[in-house]
Amino acid sequence: MRGYILKIAYKGTNYCGWQVQPEKPTVQAAVQAACESVFGVETSITGCSRTDSGVHAKGFVALASGNLPEIPLASLPLALNTALPCDVAVIEAENAPEGFHPRYDAKGKEYVYYINNSRIKDPFSEETAWLFPRKINVELADSLCKEFIGRQDFASFMAAGSKITDTVRTVSAFSAERNGDTVIFRVSADGFLYNMVRIMVGTVAEKASGTALPDIKEIIAARDRAKAGVTAPAKGLFLNKVFY
Amino acid sequence: MRGYILKIAYKGTNYCGWQVQPEKPTVQAAVQAACESVFGVETSITGCSRTDSGVHAKGFVALASGNLPEIPLASLPLALNTALPCDVAVIEAENAPEGFHPRYDAKGKEYVYYINNSRIKDPFSEETAWLFPRKINVELADSLCKEFIGRQDFASFMAAGSKITDTVRTVSAFSAERNGDTVIFRVSADGFLYNMVRIMVGTVAEKASGTALPDIKEIIAARDRAKAGVTAPAKGLFLNKVFY
Repeated sequence: MRGYILKIAYKGTNYCGWQVQPEKPTVQAAVQAACESVFGVETSITGCSRTDSGVHAKGFVALASGNLPEIPLASLPLALNTALPCDVAVIEAENAPEGFHPRYDAKGKEYVYYINNSRIKDPFSEETAWLFPRKINVELADSLCKEFIGRQDFASFMAAGSKITDTVRTVSAFSAERNGDTVIFRVSADGFLYNMVRIMVGTVAEKASGTALPDIKEIIAARDRAKAGVTAPAKGLFLNKVFY
Repeated sequence: MRGYILKIAYKGTNYCGWQVQPEKPTVQAAVQAACESVFGVETSITGCSRTDSGVHAKGFVALASGNLPEIPLASLPLALNTALPCDVAVIEAENAPEGFHPRYDAKGKEYVYYINNSRIKDPFSEETAWLFPRKINVELADSLCKEFIGRQDFASFMAAGSKITDTVRTVSAFSAERNGDTVIFRVSADGFLYNMVRIMVGTVAEKASGTALPDIKEIIAARDRAKAGVTAPAKGLFLNKVFY
């Protein structure tokens, strides 16, 4: 048995998320096929997270394990990238310590969300940013972000119908900044509920552009999805880093 | 008769360039279809330039003319964008002065070229940058760029087989800079020969990363395409601005 930890970037547009599903294109299936082609043996792939259809990653972490040959770590990304489709890349490889699990060992994650805050669409970010025409007051947005920080019950920021009952999470950082027409949200937490980042971003973007919604503290206290704002679309969301 | 000047951005990946060709997807055909749908009458579209298959634009200039209705200039881009495919956007519209011609009236153009200077591919710039693995010395590259500036005969930087005989052009600016793994070339001239920017960028990138090639002055003096370096691929090239 040998395991390699792979740091992976992918553009999620053409995939039904990370996790293997029968008959559907998934990033996990693409990575597994590339590994089996390079390693020449059956390879098990374990990811750090499921990601939704259309969500992207710059620093997804996966474990490739099995009866794998030893390959120099500097060459492994290049070899795998040759076998991967153009929208998936292995950017780093390292040897996995015995017993490493990409999901259970993760201490937290950082997501980044991009908004194109313009009335005019941008052909170069159509698949990687949310086109949001109303002007966002980014100082206000950043101050709203700060109200999420801490160990709180985020039930209001979980997709309706989700089965999870322990909805307490610790948000360690959440910020908004502007770069021209692009508004960038960055959020870190020890874990995320289903659609949590997308509902947080949707709520802050709406409030900071004039939509009447309750105060963030009230929305959190309500423990009611209906009190929060819209779910921002998947295409602006990037899994940026996993903390171990 | 009424004319609108349209400033257009497009991702050229899925188009056989700007200019209409029978049976092929072109940006001009897409713009014409959108105009005719919004204006409700036959519309003539004239572009500032042909661009090659796969080349992009951030500031392409086109004239839409015909028996067109008057539409408020602030609304026109939004109306046209609704009718355009997702990889083409009208970013500005203004009234055309009588007799305006986007190509003949242009005094010059600026192109930008992006290189991903890394051994590792980037899923987010696969269609908009040239993956160039050998390290480019960007200070050297920038100093090589400067040798192109001025009124010179650029026959060595024209695609072999081109029919043009007057190969003298004035390059007013040419620079290279690095932003992380991205190397950005920016070049302005009063006109460009066929593939001129791509051969200039290919030659500088090769020389600044260790390929043995003659000095730029010698290559220019030779008036021989075979003396210059490779033609950089279309996908890294953007028509950025047109000067009038």
